[in-house]
Amino acid sequence: MVDCIIIGAGVAGVSAALTLKALKREFLLIGSANLSNKVAGAEKIKNYPGLDGASGAQFVQIMKDQLLHGGISVTEGHVTGIYEGDGCFFVACGQEMYEGKSIILATGVESVKPIVGEREFVGRGVSYCAVCDGFLYRGKTIAVVCTDREEEREVELLAGYASKVYLFALYKNCTVNLPNVEIVKGIPSQIKGGTKVEGIVVGGKEIAVDGVFMLKDSACDTLYPALRVENGSVAVDRNMATNVKGMFAAGDCTGRPYQYAKAAGEGNVAAHSVSAYLGR
Amino acid sequence: MVDCIIIGAGVAGVSAALTLKALKREFLLIGSANLSNKVAGAEKIKNYPGLDGASGAQFVQIMKDQLLHGGISVTEGHVTGIYEGDGCFFVACGQEMYEGKSIILATGVESVKPIVGEREFVGRGVSYCAVCDGFLYRGKTIAVVCTDREEEREVELLAGYASKVYLFALYKNCTVNLPNVEIVKGIPSQIKGGTKVEGIVVGGKEIAVDGVFMLKDSACDTLYPALRVENGSVAVDRNMATNVKGMFAAGDCTGRPYQYAKAAGEGNVAAHSVSAYLGR
Repeated sequence: MVDCIIIGAGVAGVSAALTLKALKREFLLIGSANLSNKVAGAEKIKNYPGLDGASGAQFVQIMKDQLLHGGISVTEGHVTGIYEGDGCFFVACGQEMYEGKSIILATGVESVKPIVGEREFVGRGVSYCAVCDGFLYRGKTIAVVCTDREEEREVELLAGYASKVYLFALYKNCTVNLPNVEIVKGIPSQIKGGTKVEGIVVGGKEIAVDGVFMLKDSACDTLYPALRVENGSVAVDRNMATNVKGMFAAGDCTGRPYQYAKAAGEGNVAAHSVSAYLGR
Repeated sequence: MVDCIIIGAGVAGVSAALTLKALKREFLLIGSANLSNKVAGAEKIKNYPGLDGASGAQFVQIMKDQLLHGGISVTEGHVTGIYEGDGCFFVACGQEMYEGKSIILATGVESVKPIVGEREFVGRGVSYCAVCDGFLYRGKTIAVVCTDREEEREVELLAGYASKVYLFALYKNCTVNLPNVEIVKGIPSQIKGGTKVEGIVVGGKEIAVDGVFMLKDSACDTLYPALRVENGSVAVDRNMATNVKGMFAAGDCTGRPYQYAKAAGEGNVAAHSVSAYLGR
């Protein structure tokens, strides 16, 4: 039985792993050997201290190197459930069942059902983060798919960069009112393009755009029914403890802002909290 | 009047600045042009995602480059007080008085009164972080100055690396009991050495050591009397909001763990919270 099972190998999971290693704890890091396709698809990282304009692919490579140098391997697999044992947890992962004294959930967020072409063009015109990628579309034409009024500030931020914004506001009573923002009725069905995004299809018609921002609400994957979730995110305290004793969470699954720095910080704090929970 | 005044230009302050810039907010970043001597003195960084064994000096240089590329300058000065105005704050800094709609406190922690030689040997044998630097002392002899029983786990971590530990337990009822840990009575008066630490002085006698770990409790600098402080740290919620409306905090000043990743994450979250507080 290991001290901790980290579920998810994105920025939060990797941060937790590096810190648990420094704290000399035994753990499993379950995820993809590629760590995170979402991170790898980021065009340019500007607001993460220590990465001066690196690409997401570069960030992933550095994290892979860090795991290698720390002697940490990723246990590949998809976790399908977590079950409580006697002072421990069982984690079902494919045909395997792993046992750990504690859990760090670092599962990220699974966006709602993707549009045709959305996944294909991530990093090639499709972005999930106005703050991260908005500046790439200075003077360009973009589409923004927005499912939540809370994201309107980000729509306006994008409108400050782009010359023209086609806004798909998939909620009631949109309040965005800017001269260069055109509200489009209907739900987009497809993103099209060649090497990069060229257009978005709605009602059978294609609108030419240079990029598409998907500002979507996210559904948090709850692998453990008793886990407390608030507004679709795992509820945690300042120590990253959930309502379940011995279960911690970090990164995008705990809610906004969906940012690498937040994920790295929360993974670090969760690892320290796990160590304090385990005792000597 | 700027949207926000960030007090402190360590990792948390820089993270907040980079993110406020991405959010197109106007702000002042007050601190040292060298950002953080504490970071600059770190020998090797291992558990920060994105920095694979970089030195603290390298980390500082990357952050300086990021500020430069973001068009962000550091306003040099020492803040002596914060005063509330009518829906704004005034920040006294040397002969200047700055006005901001919001505040991010990123002041770090000022360790209790340093020992003679302590500051001089930071990065050359003096460390404040067992998790960060312990591995550098494999098989070596070290002194550990510990002011809080909460840090005993870190003492034991160090004892797992070093062959011999001289422990100055500056509190009652020390419970560390390991064959290679010798508890030394008295308060150390000086750290001595040449290019690196060579010894620590107690009761007029010098003990030869390769390194000194200062595991000290920290006093949080309260620039604003009404600010709520708990156990010496600024009390914050998950959004990094303090008890004072419009005043946020991030990094070491909000408490343990004193880690770069936590500081970067909290700076990022504080910036997003400031932006939400300011509205459109």
